[in-house]
Amino acid sequence: MEKIDFSIRCLGEPRVKSPLKEADFVEDSEKVIYSNDPAEILEQQKEFNELCAFEKAGPRRMIYHDPSWSKAAILTAGGLCPGLNDVIKSLTMTLKKRYRVPVVYGIRYGYAGLNPDYRYEPLVLDDENVDDIHCDGGTILGSSRGNQDEKVIVDTLMRMDINMLFCIGGDGTLRGAHAIAEEIKKRKLSISVIGIPKTIDNDISFIDKSFGFETAIYSTHTVISSAHNEAKGAANGVGLVHLMGRDSGFIAAFASLANSVVNYCLIPEESFSLDDGGPNDLIRSLVPRLKERKHAVIVVAEGAGQEFFDVTQKMIDKSGNVLNGNIGLLLKEKIKEAGDKYGIEINVKYFDPSYMIRSVPAHGTDSVFCLMLAQHAAHAAMLGRTDMVIGHWNSAFTHVPIVLSTSKRKKIELKSQLWRSVLALTWPEYQS
Amino acid sequence: MEKIDFSIRCLGEPRVKSPLKEADFVEDSEKVIYSNDPAEILEQQKEFNELCAFEKAGPRRMIYHDPSWSKAAILTAGGLCPGLNDVIKSLTMTLKKRYRVPVVYGIRYGYAGLNPDYRYEPLVLDDENVDDIHCDGGTILGSSRGNQDEKVIVDTLMRMDINMLFCIGGDGTLRGAHAIAEEIKKRKLSISVIGIPKTIDNDISFIDKSFGFETAIYSTHTVISSAHNEAKGAANGVGLVHLMGRDSGFIAAFASLANSVVNYCLIPEESFSLDDGGPNDLIRSLVPRLKERKHAVIVVAEGAGQEFFDVTQKMIDKSGNVLNGNIGLLLKEKIKEAGDKYGIEINVKYFDPSYMIRSVPAHGTDSVFCLMLAQHAAHAAMLGRTDMVIGHWNSAFTHVPIVLSTSKRKKIELKSQLWRSVLALTWPEYQS
Amino acid sequence: MEKIDFSIRCLGEPRVKSPLKEADFVEDSEKVIYSNDPAEILEQQKEFNELCAFEKAGPRRMIYHDPSWSKAAILTAGGLCPGLNDVIKSLTMTLKKRYRVPVVYGIRYGYAGLNPDYRYEPLVLDDENVDDIHCDGGTILGSSRGNQDEKVIVDTLMRMDINMLFCIGGDGTLRGAHAIAEEIKKRKLSISVIGIPKTIDNDISFIDKSFGFETAIYSTHTVISSAHNEAKGAANGVGLVHLMGRDSGFIAAFASLANSVVNYCLIPEESFSLDDGGPNDLIRSLVPRLKERKHAVIVVAEGAGQEFFDVTQKMIDKSGNVLNGNIGLLLKEKIKEAGDKYGIEINVKYFDPSYMIRSVPAHGTDSVFCLMLAQHAAHAAMLGRTDMVIGHWNSAFTHVPIVLSTSKRKKIELKSQLWRSVLALTWPEYQS
Amino acid sequence: MEKIDFSIRCLGEPRVKSPLKEADFVEDSEKVIYSNDPAEILEQQKEFNELCAFEKAGPRRMIYHDPSWSKAAILTAGGLCPGLNDVIKSLTMTLKKRYRVPVVYGIRYGYAGLNPDYRYEPLVLDDENVDDIHCDGGTILGSSRGNQDEKVIVDTLMRMDINMLFCIGGDGTLRGAHAIAEEIKKRKLSISVIGIPKTIDNDISFIDKSFGFETAIYSTHTVISSAHNEAKGAANGVGLVHLMGRDSGFIAAFASLANSVVNYCLIPEESFSLDDGGPNDLIRSLVPRLKERKHAVIVVAEGAGQEFFDVTQKMIDKSGNVLNGNIGLLLKEKIKEAGDKYGIEINVKYFDPSYMIRSVPAHGTDSVFCLMLAQHAAHAAMLGRTDMVIGHWNSAFTHVPIVLSTSKRKKIELKSQLWRSVLALTWPEYQS
Repeated sequence: MEKIDFSIRCLGEPRVKSPLKEADFVEDSEKVIYSNDPAEILEQQKEFNELCAFEKAGPRRMIYHDPSWSKAAILTAGGLCPGLNDVIKSLTMTLKKRYRVPVVYGIRYGYAGLNPDYRYEPLVLDDENVDDIHCDGGTILGSSRGNQDEKVIVDTLMRMDINMLFCIGGDGTLRGAHAIAEEIKKRKLSISVIGIPKTIDNDISFIDKSFGFETAIYSTHTVISSAHNEAKGAANGVGLVHLMGRDSGFIAAFASLANSVVNYCLIPEESFSLDDGGPNDLIRSLVPRLKERKHAVIVVAEGAGQEFFDVTQKMIDKSGNVLNGNIGLLLKEKIKEAGDKYGIEINVKYFDPSYMIRSVPAHGTDSVFCLMLAQHAAHAAMLGRTDMVIGHWNSAFTHVPIVLSTSKRKKIELKSQLWRSVLALTWPEYQS
Repeated sequence: MEKIDFSIRCLGEPRVKSPLKEADFVEDSEKVIYSNDPAEILEQQKEFNELCAFEKAGPRRMIYHDPSWSKAAILTAGGLCPGLNDVIKSLTMTLKKRYRVPVVYGIRYGYAGLNPDYRYEPLVLDDENVDDIHCDGGTILGSSRGNQDEKVIVDTLMRMDINMLFCIGGDGTLRGAHAIAEEIKKRKLSISVIGIPKTIDNDISFIDKSFGFETAIYSTHTVISSAHNEAKGAANGVGLVHLMGRDSGFIAAFASLANSVVNYCLIPEESFSLDDGGPNDLIRSLVPRLKERKHAVIVVAEGAGQEFFDVTQKMIDKSGNVLNGNIGLLLKEKIKEAGDKYGIEINVKYFDPSYMIRSVPAHGTDSVFCLMLAQHAAHAAMLGRTDMVIGHWNSAFTHVPIVLSTSKRKKIELKSQLWRSVLALTWPEYQS
Repeated sequence: MEKIDFSIRCLGEPRVKSPLKEADFVEDSEKVIYSNDPAEILEQQKEFNELCAFEKAGPRRMIYHDPSWSKAAILTAGGLCPGLNDVIKSLTMTLKKRYRVPVVYGIRYGYAGLNPDYRYEPLVLDDENVDDIHCDGGTILGSSRGNQDEKVIVDTLMRMDINMLFCIGGDGTLRGAHAIAEEIKKRKLSISVIGIPKTIDNDISFIDKSFGFETAIYSTHTVISSAHNEAKGAANGVGLVHLMGRDSGFIAAFASLANSVVNYCLIPEESFSLDDGGPNDLIRSLVPRLKERKHAVIVVAEGAGQEFFDVTQKMIDKSGNVLNGNIGLLLKEKIKEAGDKYGIEINVKYFDPSYMIRSVPAHGTDSVFCLMLAQHAAHAAMLGRTDMVIGHWNSAFTHVPIVLSTSKRKKIELKSQLWRSVLALTWPEYQS
Repeated sequence: MEKIDFSIRCLGEPRVKSPLKEADFVEDSEKVIYSNDPAEILEQQKEFNELCAFEKAGPRRMIYHDPSWSKAAILTAGGLCPGLNDVIKSLTMTLKKRYRVPVVYGIRYGYAGLNPDYRYEPLVLDDENVDDIHCDGGTILGSSRGNQDEKVIVDTLMRMDINMLFCIGGDGTLRGAHAIAEEIKKRKLSISVIGIPKTIDNDISFIDKSFGFETAIYSTHTVISSAHNEAKGAANGVGLVHLMGRDSGFIAAFASLANSVVNYCLIPEESFSLDDGGPNDLIRSLVPRLKERKHAVIVVAEGAGQEFFDVTQKMIDKSGNVLNGNIGLLLKEKIKEAGDKYGIEINVKYFDPSYMIRSVPAHGTDSVFCLMLAQHAAHAAMLGRTDMVIGHWNSAFTHVPIVLSTSKRKKIELKSQLWRSVLALTWPEYQS
């Protein structure tokens, strides 16, 4: 058993009285237990003489930054995700209306907006211009990919007198935020850097739920119904749906359970075969099913089946990452070939709805989650916490060190109830 | 002025009393005027001594087929379209509940279901199994492309004792229906062949509105909003939406007006240029717009810009038709190239939602249209009409000879109020 | 045969060259025929020596008002309706971007906004503040009921130098617009008054379709499905849905056809009985149906069954109109009583979704309709037409005198194909 | 600190080998910790020498009931809730496809379907007839209110040879299930009784989330937007939305956060005043807001403000419960009166969408939750557990004794982050 470091960096002692109401406060001593298994908890207690737990998020009686002298900046980076505008709205409202921070900047187009070379003017956010943005998808700030030199960024923060920076973005963005926090530390500045983790794939470790994921699952319903209709609309029809999920198959798995007409769900975590008789042989399961039922629906996560691509031929993106091969298009070809080989004319209809899923507005309980996440981010920044993200664990909001949250990716456990549920509803072989 | 032949073929004199209620009937003499321009009407009257008009659809007092001896068959062919199940439900209900036809077959997978080689069993339709199909997209019968030998089909119709065949499909399907009707005529059989024109592109001549089109337009809203969000979400973002419209741009034009965030709408009927300074030069309009506004949304119909493809390299489908080059992907490349050339990094997000638009269930007034269209098809069949489709013109349902409806495609008139409205809202050059 | 007066009042001869493109123009001579029945057309021709026809809407080469000296005002009055913001946006864009009218006012809260007593400041509309209003329901201008003294209003128009007034509203609003136009005429002013007829009930005469109606029908789908689910969810469950339709049953009839799970559709145009054995006896049809099928869905328009209320007890509104009795609640009671009488426990679930239907944004082809309607209203105003509304007839936009459009209400013809279709799908007695 | 009894009753030792795959199993020793606060956990450990924890749900290697000799019965009772059909489908699929239980009955209309007096025939469920029911709201089984004599029910279970009864329902239904389980115990029968807790109000104790709640929140979005549109559409417009929540305000609170245009949220847990100057005086906050902003949106839970009703005049339902007074209609009156008193004409638009919210189909992650809940219920029944419900706690599915789950209602803590978030966004006084 390895000990995990849940400790959060602080800019200094909170000495300013919070302007919030008395009833709102959380005590500093409150924590959120990491494990929910009593046996494990007792073992930790025995081994470390304390329980592994997150710092609990929430407003405190005493805060670090003086609201009336504060200037906050918010930026969004990476791909779109439902709920970005909810987060921006809630950050703005909490800072301006509750803490009475006089200036909240909206930085344009991610970190680029903090690099003077790009000459992007920041927006000045207030309750008027964020009032109904929660009903729109996308981000009113714009976004961009890739980080900027942290020295340049800290120069800009200093020049603009910003003492709180909120970075809404994924893994790469959070690593950028960490570098900025380190640079700030090196210069001994009093600037809080708070990350709000964005990953439509829901694959951030130490966080049980990321914003936008829920809405993304809701919006897969229509495309899977369409795939089902197209599959049934032709003899030997196959509806093939390519969903997001570069490293983790959460979207594919949840989407398959949410609209239980899916017959095969392929994810990065579990390999499959294509007509060589290996384990989970898609073709050898699909062809008999088509002969018997005349249609099938397949959901495939973009990171699944990467072993079918020649790594040497894969494309490299700007940051030097290896790009995934397009497994959706490969499957489309392979299934057609299988039809020729096995003597049935298979009609494959291919769906790639990714942009349509990520650019819708968040709704319902997902909006509530965005809103509260952002409130807690504002509280953490006011409290002088830095180099951390707001997380969620076992029904509570938490403070998580950036380093911990980006240490590895969350993946679907093949033995989990989630994945066993998917298997139970999909592969016909599984039941027999 | 050329005289148009609106006359409809009949199997014979109606001699059977309709089982419908007295109040329901339409008089045989009722017609629907073709032109709505008084000047043109008077000219026709002068030249032909009669007014160009359609036969009006509706139930008649006396019918040709004896309901209690009748057997009907329904088939769906070609690509999916919203409303197919509404049409199937309404045909079944009208034939079985109102005319008391004892047997209504649902033929599987288009014309293939009438070719014994395929061994597809027909469904027997009744009010139980069609009860809630109007809430589902697709077609419960399945569909297929391509026609079958009309002799084989008429053999099947005779063997199954079918005296009414309803063919729901597009241009090709209707030509197939005409060939079947001709074969029936040759053999002097009493089988009505009634077409129900399906074209999500709304491009059938002599018919002002085709079923499913309205729902298709409604379902473009989300994808265009997504494209807008993606475009605004990146500096110099372009949301590029590829919509249906092989020969006519109705879907693209209506979609652009329905969600008026579209900046360029490209249709087959009007050519455009790509950076050669010709008329409607997309690149030379887009680049300055991006510099000024930082984002743009483009809607392109699949049949637009075909002049950019080398005809000799185009693919040919099974029926020998030349397939369109993929203008969406071409534009994506050209726009990126333009970015390099003009020194701005353009972020193109490409959307191709076609299956998602055509496989949704019809709703609202579009469902009402499907329902009434099918009722009128049933009335026409019972009346002994044949070799015709049910049309709609100037607020009334009509009988249209198949030959007339397939004689040419309806296209957007460049001088029409529709197209001028699109231009007025899109190309920035147009206003100045 | 009575001759209808389709002539439109003009402020004067058009002498200003339109700034629009050459290709856009409609010829003054273009008309839209009123009847679509050849027999009737020939008879008119014989009797009046001309054909009954509307003036066709559209931009003209020469216009009356000089755009650069113009000031327009737009107001919305009466209850909400889908599409109000589309109309406001399209009016603003057409006037400002195409005609280059320098000032377009948005008048607050209907006619009250033109009465200085209320001290409502007008908005100044431009392409920025109307940019995305088409995605929101309601009206950005606000609305109010009731007219104001036309003398006061014309004083205000004079004081503000307004030469074009657009009144978006129903019957009452249009009568108010007529009074204003008359007052303007009396004072010999050059102010165009153009009405844009708003009626979610689709009940304006001489106009085949009113904006918002289509969207309203789309949005009834969910409530009728809910009623169906509730009805099936209890033994002898009845889902009772009260829909709009004060004098005409178009919404109830279309909604019943659009989601064909409705078993009874009650409208103002056809009376029915409640357990006295009269014609269309709802109770005596419903009770046996419940015994056999255990559930039923009833749609009732608010103006149906008013004969069951004692006129002397009806409420009177501010304008002296007799308010309808609430037929929905009455039916709820009567059905429960019938259960007691006939010994079955009937579970009635009552739905009254009216505000939810009228306050949604317009979508799809309905948005397109709003947009083009408003464009034509702008063209008509620039042309110097006045005291008229923009209508739609047989696929074309038309000019209709206000007096004609308010002369009577459009109602469902009981012999029409629309109503016969509803009957064919609802009352079980109808089929047998 | 009181010790909570989490122990679950078993019918006997599991001795049958489960037919499920090896990888699926959960170990008997696995538990789910109750508290997530380390301090509390340590205190429990000290006081009770063990940790408070739920038994973890999931399939076990050895089970109690022999699948091939089993007969299951499923019933739904109480009001509709999104997801009922998902639960029915998933129970049926898990029992029939995975455990190979030969017979699964769907009992009609709740407990009444187990009372022979009602003569309701059960449905026989299989994978065909449950295949697409997850896309429909309501329950295919029908429901009813009220319990039946447990002796009669156990007689029926014995007569039908049922050894697993699944009761999907709320508090009352679960108490009924407990009574049945007690009667079974008394007779020493081997019948598992498993409850699946249904409460759209999300108010069951010891369960952090109940199925259908999430979908309910999603479906409040439209009605709150409508209320906002209506409020802004008139001068001094108030959109007043009456939502479910008899004893707990979770729906009202989440709905207010999910579509953050709400200005006042009233729940049963916090009292308010009406113009007497007491704490949370709605009228004295609303009137100034209307004067300044001209519109407001109010959300009120049905159980709020019951102190304004005279208990002696409240209605009593069949079971002797006191029915709530209609606070929505009361507020409507009071607000109008306040307008008269304070001299502004307030336009109140009242919305009561309850049936529309509860009768929609579940979607997205809520459907996934239903599906997994039902799988775990099937596992628990096969394992011979009884007199328990399937719960969910801190990201895991749990076994909860019925007696514990019905011991008290979950309510909103006024000091919770949830409620403080609502306050922070609503009452204007709260910020100042």
